[in-house]
Amino acid sequence: MKKTTIHDIARELDVTFSTVARALNDHPAISAATKAAVLETAKRLNYQQNKLASSLRSGRTNVIGIIVPSLDTSFFSSVVHGLEKVMNENGYSMLLYQTGESLSQEQKGIETFLQSRVDGIISSVSGEVEIKEFYEQISKRQVPLLFFDRAINELPVPSVTINDYRAGFLATEHLIGQGYKNIAHLTSDQNLTIFKERFRGYRDALQRYNLPVDEKMIFKGKLSLEFGKESVQQMLDKQMNFDAVFAAEDYTAMGALQLLLEKGYKVPEEIGIMGFANEAFGAFVTPSLSTVDQQTIRMGEETAHLFLKLIGSKDYYGTTPERIVLDPILLPRRSSQPD
Amino acid sequence: MKKTTIHDIARELDVTFSTVARALNDHPAISAATKAAVLETAKRLNYQQNKLASSLRSGRTNVIGIIVPSLDTSFFSSVVHGLEKVMNENGYSMLLYQTGESLSQEQKGIETFLQSRVDGIISSVSGEVEIKEFYEQISKRQVPLLFFDRAINELPVPSVTINDYRAGFLATEHLIGQGYKNIAHLTSDQNLTIFKERFRGYRDALQRYNLPVDEKMIFKGKLSLEFGKESVQQMLDKQMNFDAVFAAEDYTAMGALQLLLEKGYKVPEEIGIMGFANEAFGAFVTPSLSTVDQQTIRMGEETAHLFLKLIGSKDYYGTTPERIVLDPILLPRRSSQPD
Repeated sequence: MKKTTIHDIARELDVTFSTVARALNDHPAISAATKAAVLETAKRLNYQQNKLASSLRSGRTNVIGIIVPSLDTSFFSSVVHGLEKVMNENGYSMLLYQTGESLSQEQKGIETFLQSRVDGIISSVSGEVEIKEFYEQISKRQVPLLFFDRAINELPVPSVTINDYRAGFLATEHLIGQGYKNIAHLTSDQNLTIFKERFRGYRDALQRYNLPVDEKMIFKGKLSLEFGKESVQQMLDKQMNFDAVFAAEDYTAMGALQLLLEKGYKVPEEIGIMGFANEAFGAFVTPSLSTVDQQTIRMGEETAHLFLKLIGSKDYYGTTPERIVLDPILLPRRSSQPD
Repeated sequence: MKKTTIHDIARELDVTFSTVARALNDHPAISAATKAAVLETAKRLNYQQNKLASSLRSGRTNVIGIIVPSLDTSFFSSVVHGLEKVMNENGYSMLLYQTGESLSQEQKGIETFLQSRVDGIISSVSGEVEIKEFYEQISKRQVPLLFFDRAINELPVPSVTINDYRAGFLATEHLIGQGYKNIAHLTSDQNLTIFKERFRGYRDALQRYNLPVDEKMIFKGKLSLEFGKESVQQMLDKQMNFDAVFAAEDYTAMGALQLLLEKGYKVPEEIGIMGFANEAFGAFVTPSLSTVDQQTIRMGEETAHLFLKLIGSKDYYGTTPERIVLDPILLPRRSSQPD
């Protein structure tokens, strides 16, 4: 069955499209009798008024679109949890769109949200350079936009991020403090600032403590359990001299941990492991996984508050967008502490 | 800055709303010159055509709304993953809405989707009896609807679920086969068929093997790590005679496991533990957590295929909706096998 449209009601009553549309919107030029007839017919034909379309006038839908790489990870689902709570309390509904790190999906998500006339978009981007022009389109349409965790810094858009440089530095410094000297780094091959910053923190910590930075001990790939296993397997195959692994993401760290245990290595006594993101499983595994907590709930809440402030200001694309940078929290557990 | 509307374009060109609307929709009654002027003005004023509104005529948006209790659990994020993949390949975009098990949020999600004129709704419900009338509204509007995992069986709506009775039976039978005789059950206080069915499977398995069903060993609450800990703590406080715990959800099982290990009990030697849902952490913990796999990716794929079939059939609310029931897969790990 086709959906009932304004045209169907107009045909039924033998009046114009415009009369029906204005009657439905309680326009003063339309008589009370006509309004009553239109409403009765609309009800009888099961017409569902497109509130989004009629909200064109008020410019409000109270719906916010959120773009995330994936909700499969604790990190994003937890940030969204904090964000959603505050936004719901303020009368907003949230629609979520997963990009799966695909740029074409990200573009599609933005288009879907713009077509749905969302009141704003909150996004964690998949690619900074490649996706920039789609976000410029959002700003042209003056739809409020905010980035969280992953931002495009060249755009005048407010953001809530974490100090990834400091996080990478702290994680590496902790391993060094525990006596590890040959620390491998497993990171992403995605061209994203967050991973570059974690890497920069790792490198600077090594240099600060006069340890060499060995390019062969830096692995780039698609962060995952498998990538963690493969990277460690490669180091074992090549008999490389490593005594610790700092992975830029927890599942990757878990892969490294699993392979080392399988091969009979003692963690943390022989090899230390440090992850990133404080995924839910880290506290449950043996040895428990050291990691960096990114204050996800707080990031979600700060993002919501900043967004509400932005919507209230009406100046969505000002010259000095507010950029909140949260501090990471080091969470040393058993996998990096030999005693 | 306010969004540009059809009214703004009409005012700018000193023509009627209807002329602009018809020009934008390439209506034959509007001259080529007027169309060109409207399009030029629309472009100049940065007008974004509401394709959803204009899709009223075709009745297609190619957007599907998915309602889930929460994406914080591997179960739902994994089902959605499988679902999204197939739907994307078929040209659909997916919008997600989390209810957090709240009935008012679920109602809001349905309304938001209907207002967005989605091409269909795929839902896993939070409450069966309470939410029934909202779903009846969807069927009145002839919007295609499909349930997954949690369905309202009284409605003539296709669904993809898992055989929860069989899952509960298999899990309990496995524990009995391993020599456990006093098996506690931790389940949800939500009024949902899935939990009632798992419980029924548990009870029938005990009876089949001539073991008593002890009401005091059945705990109902909000499934969570904390609930698992509290339930086991209560049994310990009351010095109850239990040698196994079957939890209707993995985090709850993990809470039970953690508390028992803290108190110095040996798992699985003294007490066996069985979870449900095959959360990601289960394989990583020590002892690894026995569980029931619900074939999440397959559930997502089957849901997508059934939905595509439904949309193709045009008979969205026929008298014999297709109901696919998947078989659960028992996944015995270390926590339930004393050897």
